[in-house]
Amino acid sequence: MTAASAPILLTPILLTPGPLTTSERTRAAMLTDWGSWDGSFNALTASLCDKLVAIAHGTGSHVCVPLQGSGTFAVEAAIGTFVPRRGKVLVCVNGAYGKRLAKICEALGRDHVIHETGDDVPTTPEAVDRLLAADRAISHVGLIHCETSTGILNPLEAIAAVVARHGRALIIDAMSSFGALPIDARQIPFEALIAASGKCLEGVPGMGFVIARSEALLASAGNTASLALDLRDQHLYMQRTGQWRFTPPTHVVAALHEALLQYEEEGGLPARHARYARNCQVLIAGMAKLGLRSFLAPEIQAPIIVTFHAPRDGRYRFTEFYEAVRAKGFILYPGKLTELETFRVGCIGSVGSAEMERAVDAVADTLRAMKIETI
Amino acid sequence: MTAASAPILLTPILLTPGPLTTSERTRAAMLTDWGSWDGSFNALTASLCDKLVAIAHGTGSHVCVPLQGSGTFAVEAAIGTFVPRRGKVLVCVNGAYGKRLAKICEALGRDHVIHETGDDVPTTPEAVDRLLAADRAISHVGLIHCETSTGILNPLEAIAAVVARHGRALIIDAMSSFGALPIDARQIPFEALIAASGKCLEGVPGMGFVIARSEALLASAGNTASLALDLRDQHLYMQRTGQWRFTPPTHVVAALHEALLQYEEEGGLPARHARYARNCQVLIAGMAKLGLRSFLAPEIQAPIIVTFHAPRDGRYRFTEFYEAVRAKGFILYPGKLTELETFRVGCIGSVGSAEMERAVDAVADTLRAMKIETI
Ligand SMILES: Cc1ncc(COP(=O)(O)O)c(C=O)c1O
Ligand SMILES: Cc1ncc(COP(=O)(O)O)c(C=O)c1O
Repeated sequence: MTAASAPILLTPILLTPGPLTTSERTRAAMLTDWGSWDGSFNALTASLCDKLVAIAHGTGSHVCVPLQGSGTFAVEAAIGTFVPRRGKVLVCVNGAYGKRLAKICEALGRDHVIHETGDDVPTTPEAVDRLLAADRAISHVGLIHCETSTGILNPLEAIAAVVARHGRALIIDAMSSFGALPIDARQIPFEALIAASGKCLEGVPGMGFVIARSEALLASAGNTASLALDLRDQHLYMQRTGQWRFTPPTHVVAALHEALLQYEEEGGLPARHARYARNCQVLIAGMAKLGLRSFLAPEIQAPIIVTFHAPRDGRYRFTEFYEAVRAKGFILYPGKLTELETFRVGCIGSVGSAEMERAVDAVADTLRAMKIETI
Repeated sequence: MTAASAPILLTPILLTPGPLTTSERTRAAMLTDWGSWDGSFNALTASLCDKLVAIAHGTGSHVCVPLQGSGTFAVEAAIGTFVPRRGKVLVCVNGAYGKRLAKICEALGRDHVIHETGDDVPTTPEAVDRLLAADRAISHVGLIHCETSTGILNPLEAIAAVVARHGRALIIDAMSSFGALPIDARQIPFEALIAASGKCLEGVPGMGFVIARSEALLASAGNTASLALDLRDQHLYMQRTGQWRFTPPTHVVAALHEALLQYEEEGGLPARHARYARNCQVLIAGMAKLGLRSFLAPEIQAPIIVTFHAPRDGRYRFTEFYEAVRAKGFILYPGKLTELETFRVGCIGSVGSAEMERAVDAVADTLRAMKIETI
């Protein structure tokens, strides 16, 4: 569950929201070369997809379409594949990834309207209800489950219910939540859910995937103007041949499969969620003792990544702070807010509360060495 | 240079044109996790790009734009980024990857015309000359350098000269040739050259890259209707920040960098070319002794992958043959010709003539065991 102690001295622990710290076992799965045409690799892909659909409780109703590239590639593929050229997307924005979703709609020429709230204000089901009632042209709602730019959690279940009641389709960017926060396709109606290998499943980065409602996927013919990002084509080819349409990132696939075996051994989603929640508590409590306040109220803080206010002290410089903490073995993440000086610390990856405590110690030592006052 | 002997018994050698057999040292480079925001990873990316541009002799005039995903993603990105919406592409086709290039133009809504020759007939500069003279609307020529579906080599240098003389732009799919067959940007005018990590550079699959003429790349604003596959945006962001726009496949990048160090140590392109040429000779000569003829005439055979006629004997079944050779430690590749029964054997990857000889022996033993006559 936690990283072994030897590599800590060699390479820093990543407290970043993907790429993150993976287990040695996951990385060791990349020591084998796989033929992309070979039966053994096809079996690996099939097993991977089965496991991913099962995590979403979508077996029977949904399929998993893996896609080469980073998470953004899968988001663009989902918008292009599922939203008809004359569709319209309501994009719920409270951070950088919501903005990116809107930018993708713009690039692909899909009509869209943005509903933006503050970085610390979740989208409400009431607002979505009102907007859908007022605009019959909206065919799809795009929602970021955990907005990684701050760590804010949007109320997915309530919003999904509203979207379904209006007879519209939901596209969920669950990049940084899938596998750690429950999303049950039997309770939460969605057309597409997007995630990636290198987040809460603790694989290495290099592929995304879309959990798609089978009927919607099959009905999506003719929507996309891309060959590489056509999820329907990728799915049909894979169904027919067992293979990826184009060369798969074989080692990344093998690592994700190995990571999923460890996920199951750990106890699946409840155990993963519990570990991250503990990491998050230990982190926030420890940093609070140092006088470092987190940006979000506890009730909207997802246990994925925490945004902290930077110390007000004039001696604080993020780069210097980052390098000093890095030298002590931990890689932090810069803030992503334009108006406030912040930094972020991830709670995800193959790390436990022991690592979080040591990370807090590293921050404490750094503040002391830099003579930074936090109060 | 050759795969160590231990893993041979555990995992078969891939005689496939990517994914292929990589060295243990390359795979071991994936045992470290990298932060995508960290200076050490930015340095790795910069070094990687420098090395790739240098292989094409494009330092100063060209830049390398790496892209997440498989090679096809980079091909689609190049067409979308470089061909203006009102441009027109002459696509030279003599195999599956030429057809795919045309399909990409079709999907992206780029006007195009196909010049198709037989699977064993290279595109000629004369034909390109004639077609360009006859159609002033053609802005770009798309050429597959080595058409991997058979292994045929197209006369890149002569065609590039014709394209330049007509003042049109050349886009080269050098996926399976880059790094092994010489392509010198000082002699061969091109706008974009596309390749990928898991081919002749002997990295693992998971990223492509485009060697782009800087001026053309900067002039390409507004062409593409994709966010993820926008090469100009990827380049400008990387230039400004040192980082990839979206999460990079960190382990794949590290493996490719390590593979490039070994490429240099081996002696760069001349040495890589010589090793593959020797592999190809040993393979063709050995198979000829078994009565297995190669499909292409020697003068148009690239030393990358060889297509062999399947034995005519009624007892031959590709699947059975494949599995039997696989059990002896070698993974072959199916043929890709629709009218002829063939199979393919790759000459690329971390293998030398000893492996090719043993592969021929494995084929010989298999034919004998299956009681297949080859003459
Ligand atoms: C919520 C969310 N959406 C999209 C992305 C984009 O994924 P990638 O960086 O892999 O393209 C991320 C990345 O962290 C994310 O957290
Ligand atoms: C010449 C050529 N072009 C394009 C491709 C497509 O690359 P990928 O399978 O990585 O998408 C290949 C793959 O082998 C190729 O050989």
